[in-house]
Amino acid sequence: RVKLRRFIVSPYARRYKAWETFLIVLVVYTAWASPFEFGFLERSRGALALVDNVVDALFAVDIVLTFFVAYVDKTSYLLIDSRKKIAWRYLSTWFVLDLASTVPLEIVRRILPRKLGSYGFFTMLRLWRLRRVSSLFARLEKDRKFNYFWVRCAKLTCVTLFAVHSAGCFFYLVAARYHDPSRTWIGASIPDFHVRSLWVRYVTSLYWSITTLSTVGYGDLHAQNTWEMAFTIVYMLFNLGLASYLIGNMTNLVVHGTRRTRNYRDSIQAATGFAQRNQLPDRLQDQMISHLSLSFRIDSEGLHQQETLDTLPKAIRSSISHHLFYPLVAKAYLFRGVSHNMLFQLVSEMKAEYFPPREDVILQNEAPTDLYIVVTGIMDLIDHRSGAEQVCGVAKTGDVAGEIGVLCCRPQAFTARTRSLCQLLRLNRTTLLSIVQSNVGDGTTIVNNLLQSPEVMICYCITQMNCFGLLLFFFARSDASFGR
Amino acid sequence: RVKLRRFIVSPYARRYKAWETFLIVLVVYTAWASPFEFGFLERSRGALALVDNVVDALFAVDIVLTFFVAYVDKTSYLLIDSRKKIAWRYLSTWFVLDLASTVPLEIVRRILPRKLGSYGFFTMLRLWRLRRVSSLFARLEKDRKFNYFWVRCAKLTCVTLFAVHSAGCFFYLVAARYHDPSRTWIGASIPDFHVRSLWVRYVTSLYWSITTLSTVGYGDLHAQNTWEMAFTIVYMLFNLGLASYLIGNMTNLVVHGTRRTRNYRDSIQAATGFAQRNQLPDRLQDQMISHLSLSFRIDSEGLHQQETLDTLPKAIRSSISHHLFYPLVAKAYLFRGVSHNMLFQLVSEMKAEYFPPREDVILQNEAPTDLYIVVTGIMDLIDHRSGAEQVCGVAKTGDVAGEIGVLCCRPQAFTARTRSLCQLLRLNRTTLLSIVQSNVGDGTTIVNNLLQSPEVMICYCITQMNCFGLLLFFFARSDASFGR
Amino acid sequence: RVKLRRFIVSPYARRYKAWETFLIVLVVYTAWASPFEFGFLERSRGALALVDNVVDALFAVDIVLTFFVAYVDKTSYLLIDSRKKIAWRYLSTWFVLDLASTVPLEIVRRILPRKLGSYGFFTMLRLWRLRRVSSLFARLEKDRKFNYFWVRCAKLTCVTLFAVHSAGCFFYLVAARYHDPSRTWIGASIPDFHVRSLWVRYVTSLYWSITTLSTVGYGDLHAQNTWEMAFTIVYMLFNLGLASYLIGNMTNLVVHGTRRTRNYRDSIQAATGFAQRNQLPDRLQDQMISHLSLSFRIDSEGLHQQETLDTLPKAIRSSISHHLFYPLVAKAYLFRGVSHNMLFQLVSEMKAEYFPPREDVILQNEAPTDLYIVVTGIMDLIDHRSGAEQVCGVAKTGDVAGEIGVLCCRPQAFTARTRSLCQLLRLNRTTLLSIVQSNVGDGTTIVNNLLQSPEVMICYCITQMNCFGLLLFFFARSDASFGR
Amino acid sequence: RVKLRRFIVSPYARRYKAWETFLIVLVVYTAWASPFEFGFLERSRGALALVDNVVDALFAVDIVLTFFVAYVDKTSYLLIDSRKKIAWRYLSTWFVLDLASTVPLEIVRRILPRKLGSYGFFTMLRLWRLRRVSSLFARLEKDRKFNYFWVRCAKLTCVTLFAVHSAGCFFYLVAARYHDPSRTWIGASIPDFHVRSLWVRYVTSLYWSITTLSTVGYGDLHAQNTWEMAFTIVYMLFNLGLASYLIGNMTNLVVHGTRRTRNYRDSIQAATGFAQRNQLPDRLQDQMISHLSLSFRIDSEGLHQQETLDTLPKAIRSSISHHLFYPLVAKAYLFRGVSHNMLFQLVSEMKAEYFPPREDVILQNEAPTDLYIVVTGIMDLIDHRSGAEQVCGVAKTGDVAGEIGVLCCRPQAFTARTRSLCQLLRLNRTTLLSIVQSNVGDGTTIVNNLLQSPEVMICYCITQMNCFGLLLFFFARSDASFGR
Repeated sequence: RVKLRRFIVSPYARRYKAWETFLIVLVVYTAWASPFEFGFLERSRGALALVDNVVDALFAVDIVLTFFVAYVDKTSYLLIDSRKKIAWRYLSTWFVLDLASTVPLEIVRRILPRKLGSYGFFTMLRLWRLRRVSSLFARLEKDRKFNYFWVRCAKLTCVTLFAVHSAGCFFYLVAARYHDPSRTWIGASIPDFHVRSLWVRYVTSLYWSITTLSTVGYGDLHAQNTWEMAFTIVYMLFNLGLASYLIGNMTNLVVHGTRRTRNYRDSIQAATGFAQRNQLPDRLQDQMISHLSLSFRIDSEGLHQQETLDTLPKAIRSSISHHLFYPLVAKAYLFRGVSHNMLFQLVSEMKAEYFPPREDVILQNEAPTDLYIVVTGIMDLIDHRSGAEQVCGVAKTGDVAGEIGVLCCRPQAFTARTRSLCQLLRLNRTTLLSIVQSNVGDGTTIVNNLLQSPEVMICYCITQMNCFGLLLFFFARSDASFGR
Repeated sequence: RVKLRRFIVSPYARRYKAWETFLIVLVVYTAWASPFEFGFLERSRGALALVDNVVDALFAVDIVLTFFVAYVDKTSYLLIDSRKKIAWRYLSTWFVLDLASTVPLEIVRRILPRKLGSYGFFTMLRLWRLRRVSSLFARLEKDRKFNYFWVRCAKLTCVTLFAVHSAGCFFYLVAARYHDPSRTWIGASIPDFHVRSLWVRYVTSLYWSITTLSTVGYGDLHAQNTWEMAFTIVYMLFNLGLASYLIGNMTNLVVHGTRRTRNYRDSIQAATGFAQRNQLPDRLQDQMISHLSLSFRIDSEGLHQQETLDTLPKAIRSSISHHLFYPLVAKAYLFRGVSHNMLFQLVSEMKAEYFPPREDVILQNEAPTDLYIVVTGIMDLIDHRSGAEQVCGVAKTGDVAGEIGVLCCRPQAFTARTRSLCQLLRLNRTTLLSIVQSNVGDGTTIVNNLLQSPEVMICYCITQMNCFGLLLFFFARSDASFGR
Repeated sequence: RVKLRRFIVSPYARRYKAWETFLIVLVVYTAWASPFEFGFLERSRGALALVDNVVDALFAVDIVLTFFVAYVDKTSYLLIDSRKKIAWRYLSTWFVLDLASTVPLEIVRRILPRKLGSYGFFTMLRLWRLRRVSSLFARLEKDRKFNYFWVRCAKLTCVTLFAVHSAGCFFYLVAARYHDPSRTWIGASIPDFHVRSLWVRYVTSLYWSITTLSTVGYGDLHAQNTWEMAFTIVYMLFNLGLASYLIGNMTNLVVHGTRRTRNYRDSIQAATGFAQRNQLPDRLQDQMISHLSLSFRIDSEGLHQQETLDTLPKAIRSSISHHLFYPLVAKAYLFRGVSHNMLFQLVSEMKAEYFPPREDVILQNEAPTDLYIVVTGIMDLIDHRSGAEQVCGVAKTGDVAGEIGVLCCRPQAFTARTRSLCQLLRLNRTTLLSIVQSNVGDGTTIVNNLLQSPEVMICYCITQMNCFGLLLFFFARSDASFGR
Repeated sequence: RVKLRRFIVSPYARRYKAWETFLIVLVVYTAWASPFEFGFLERSRGALALVDNVVDALFAVDIVLTFFVAYVDKTSYLLIDSRKKIAWRYLSTWFVLDLASTVPLEIVRRILPRKLGSYGFFTMLRLWRLRRVSSLFARLEKDRKFNYFWVRCAKLTCVTLFAVHSAGCFFYLVAARYHDPSRTWIGASIPDFHVRSLWVRYVTSLYWSITTLSTVGYGDLHAQNTWEMAFTIVYMLFNLGLASYLIGNMTNLVVHGTRRTRNYRDSIQAATGFAQRNQLPDRLQDQMISHLSLSFRIDSEGLHQQETLDTLPKAIRSSISHHLFYPLVAKAYLFRGVSHNMLFQLVSEMKAEYFPPREDVILQNEAPTDLYIVVTGIMDLIDHRSGAEQVCGVAKTGDVAGEIGVLCCRPQAFTARTRSLCQLLRLNRTTLLSIVQSNVGDGTTIVNNLLQSPEVMICYCITQMNCFGLLLFFFARSDASFGR
């Protein structure tokens, strides 16, 4: 959306991106054609020569175009559209090589003396264009729209295919130019190879090349004279490197790809090992396993990314919490009438957590460290005091659990157990009290909300005074008691 | 235990699981038979044809059955048993492919024109069933009842065997259909291969296939004509990928499998390096080594999984501690008569730790930061003050150590040293005092318990007043002193 | 040193360990001889037969001996010397297999019917003894006296050699028993192999075996008949697994071995990148680099192993600190006359740190958070206030630096810069004050020591009152101010 | 710059380093020449013999020189220039081997009896010099000026080339000395190899060697007699190890090299997964992605290396902060007139952070936990209270944002949003207040600065008293409120 100078194109413009993609296709053609012409054709003729010239012309157009494309400055992250700067940047980096790889070969051959102008070597200059493929893959690897595994595999496949193709073409050239055709790697098995079709010669070359590269080495085709041996030595050394590079990359991908499963298994195994050794009852074992399973499943599906969120600055995290939870928290009975400022601060401090079905969130008599607000799902409130489990309430979206314990500083009154998959907002007691402290008026509103809750009236008739007293005490002494 | 609608089967029902396991066996048969028939048989006959049809019929039954199996919804984690939803889900995902891979081949051949209906290719549609094996392995990898290493090895072996088998069958087909049998990879070494037994032809094909895949490449059998070369090129490229995938996986497993030993060695080495450089006395070195050894041995056997436990929510951890340690703590003399609420909170905060024999747990004169309760094992209480070591007591299951230091805020009075492998509950002083603070009545009970302990009477006659005074002082000023 | 029952041997006794080591040598002999006899000899004769019987006899002795060796119980870590328990444990685990692998072959052949008693297969039972080698390597891997890399390499070499040797012997057997010697892998190249020397036959077998295992596959020797092909298929599949296992292990070792260097480079690179980008002056850059270099060098040499020490329980850490630093701290002028209890607590809380030459430890005007005691090396105290750097003192072993800032709660008065490699004890201000608080008498001693220091008299004449006043203020209000 | 004794050279002296580099070149020559002479030449003649003698002489010079080079002591890190110590250290370590590898071969042959003095084996002693190459690579790996990947690759290439070269020479020797030339690996394919040129023989040897090492194994050249088989077995075993070492190293490098990209992708993926699932608005998504992208880009370019800085001791970190930010902070209006001491402490506690363009740094109504000072870039101050966004100010280099919230303990008054890439200094509120507390006079200056700010006058007319009151309250009660 940035307005650029006249005739200057943004590198993010859709049309320019399409042009770049089109060039990649041409580069792939060049990567195939250059070694092929170098190895198999004395001189490109007919359709191939025409296509070559068209491709060269298109790359020449790109060179001109580059002088009109803005670029992003590396230090200020701004789009530079000054023509001088663009030109200077291009001229001082890749212009010469780009130009050299576009000069028509016919001209080169006429200018240079006969011996130097040997056809093939200038064709290879075209391969400079491969840098575009290299930078394409570097970009794709970082692009979240593409799967890392497949991008990487595609890159390795391309490298391997190019190596096989180039080596095949080169070794055919070595054989074709040798003075004694019968003492070449291909002539020894196909004596009349000079008169065979291009298809047979090309496939045989590729076959020899891949047989060597994959270290199969049948031996039906092998170096016959000393020069072939010397070139094969170099090729095999290169293959050693390439093979270990392929394996290294695959290992890297496998290790990365199985990390999640391994971590999952490790934690499940640790949990069950612990449970079996200590003979924990089945109910507890099930809760442990289902919680760990859920947390790994959520992690992979993107519900829960606490680590990533923690690396973001506070303002973004606050914005996210505000977007997701403000409406819900504002409607919770406990925070009715509370000022916008305080709600904002409360929401910033809340953490969203997921619990699988039938897991205990709060235990009766537990120390009150956290207060929960239900976002989705249903939670049962259970009373154990009478000995048996007795469901005495249900918490749905927008309901608050554990608030009495937290605000009155008493052990939790109920066990809260999820009925289905629940998303809960957790608010730490210390955080709540320190926010209340700096918004004393809102604190009173919260206490009033709590006292008006019918639940409190029924369950805490007797302890009410105590509760209220404690709260007043908190607010009066707040700076000293929870001042940190 | 969930009640489903009539005629709807749960995916967790034992019978359905048995049926699925049975189908896996059939899939394995298909994986072997399809390429084999494709490569070696013009038309399946006799027993093989019968078995094929039976297997097809059973998969047809499974297609029908799938319309009656409930499924777990991905967002709500609930079991869906509505017939419409089940049908819609199946029809919109895999139904078409499942059906296509079950159509009898005889019918296909009659319907389609002669040339298109070439036998082999339709057999290959059967391989769609392999997705069941793939999902089976994905499940087994996450199943804690199976060893990850062996599941993964089994998967890789299956993939390799299938690749070898398929390639062998395919290359035999290529050779068998070539116009000049003497110019094929098999015909060059076995000129009369057409009349040899199936066993010889099959083993030779597999031999050729595995020789290429494992990159041994003896060269006794190798591509003879251009088409074979072309196919071999593709196969070798695939092998490069497969080989690096195998190696990558094995590396992953080895790295994962030796992690524990490496970590153990690293920490032992760091400890001994430190000890030798600083010329620590042997007793200390032994204590360091035996503690590190124990903590690694326990880790592998499942006694100690603090990390996993820490990822569980507080309620589950409290339940576990309550289950394991509540009875023991309730019987400890220090907590006799203390309210259920407070005991619950104390137990939640305790950590279980293991100590090897003859290791110091508490040192005389150390600052009192922790209190220990013995769960298993025996601990000696040793007094160094007289110069020599003098055992002045023994702590057994249920006894408390270090309580005087912690409660009176004085340096520890004894060295506590384990006699055998001990499991101890550790309670942090700060935690204890903050719990005592919110349960003032129970605090008094604890002080009384402490004062009635004969040990205290004997050892601390003189400092008793001071001790009592400090405690009173604590409770009076508790909010300010340990209010955090 | 534990007294065992009569006739019961400790597994840690030196003689028993020697006996076990001797048995390992015999196992290595068995591992070589068993496959060799199986493959190359119809019936062991002469010296070999004698040695075999002696070895068998020695293993029989070991079986008897095992009934008299105590063992360590897995749950209590105690040495069990009850004969009944030892016998029961052995009988219920490995006794049967140990016995089966020791029965003399002559007896077996007489008892069993001719066909079953085929010589070779019973020889293979001897290989059960290899479990001793396996458990030896498991032990060596964990033994800190042996280098992990070489132990692991030795293990892999042994596995590879055994695989090559066994496969060679087995394939010779397959060839030797084939009805048509000219159509075997060895007969095709050495037609008269039956009459060649054992050395030629054995080396040729090994050569074939290793050529296949290392996937070189020259092709001069290769499978000639269908059975050989079938066995070669199995061997090549096994080789795929073995090769990837070897590579996986080597990768693991390389990754583990280069971790330190990589970490070092990463941190150095981050530091220099930061310095260059921010154009920090050379002096600061040098300090950063030399500090990072030192910390990595120390880490590798064992001077500094904070992480390992942190995993040890507090009592051991206190013992170590006490052993290393108590005498030094007790002699420091600041802690002269301070009670043993308090010194003990102070020493427990001190951290030893290393500083390279010419690095700033304390900066003038910095907030006083730490106090340092010099253990080794020399430190210059430098005053910048006059504009230029002016060395106004030197701190040697036993001297204290930064104490005035810490105790008077003022910015540091001097820059302290190391002259040579220094080991310093760091004591945190908060920790010091909280220890002083609980030992009020010792606090007064420390203040007196400080006031008697000539340095303080000279430099702080004016601020002395303030300093003293602050200290009194600290002790009076200590519980509230630094009560945590 | 250290002054050494007379005639003693520093190991860091430029000339000595050049001499060492020159010796490395000679070592490379030796590494090539020694195996070559051993394998192909009966006796070195002509130019080669001359060069050998010159090289030996130069190494003899180095032996003498070593007695005059100071060394760094391993424990004290000091440069030792005592001649006695230097001599003792050299004589007790490598002197004997260095000498043995320098003795002229002509002398050796004359002294030793004919049979023992076989030419070749003494040439191999020269290879002891390779230790210099090994230690060179160890040094280069740790040198930050060289890329780790390429140093490691170069090392592996050297090892591979040396292995190929040595094996080639050795196997030629084995063939050349065999009694029946036609039954050697080279004689079987080149019957007249004895009379061929050195070039043909050398290339053929290398070709055989690399064919085996890379496991291609064409089979055109292979072992023909038993001794060759035996040596090939050893070579192939060595190759197994070398190949897995190469692959292991490459894997290590690949894993290390792609770590950054993988981490980047993981965090981006987690963030977008979270955003999509929660349907966050586009603006928030963009902020998340651009922040994560920036933090990874900065990390790789060296702007932000918090982790490394955190491992440095406090004094260095303070020096860095002081160098970078002191002038800027001293000029900020809020800290005008504040004492040097306090500024120093403030600067030490500040953290530099980067924010991409258009990201929120402070949100209106957020709890005030941090104060920011702009180092580079421009930040908009935006007011949302009127409903629409309204830019009410701009913060440039040296301006302070969020100070009113922090000092008056009120929710933030503005949203602060970056306009371009910004570097901000973040100062935590708690840290600020605790520093202010110990510099009460400076606190008053800061309050005065704040009150004189026109911004405060306009926006906070009404709340001014409250603000001032709170501040006074802070300073009065400071010890209790933020005493930690």
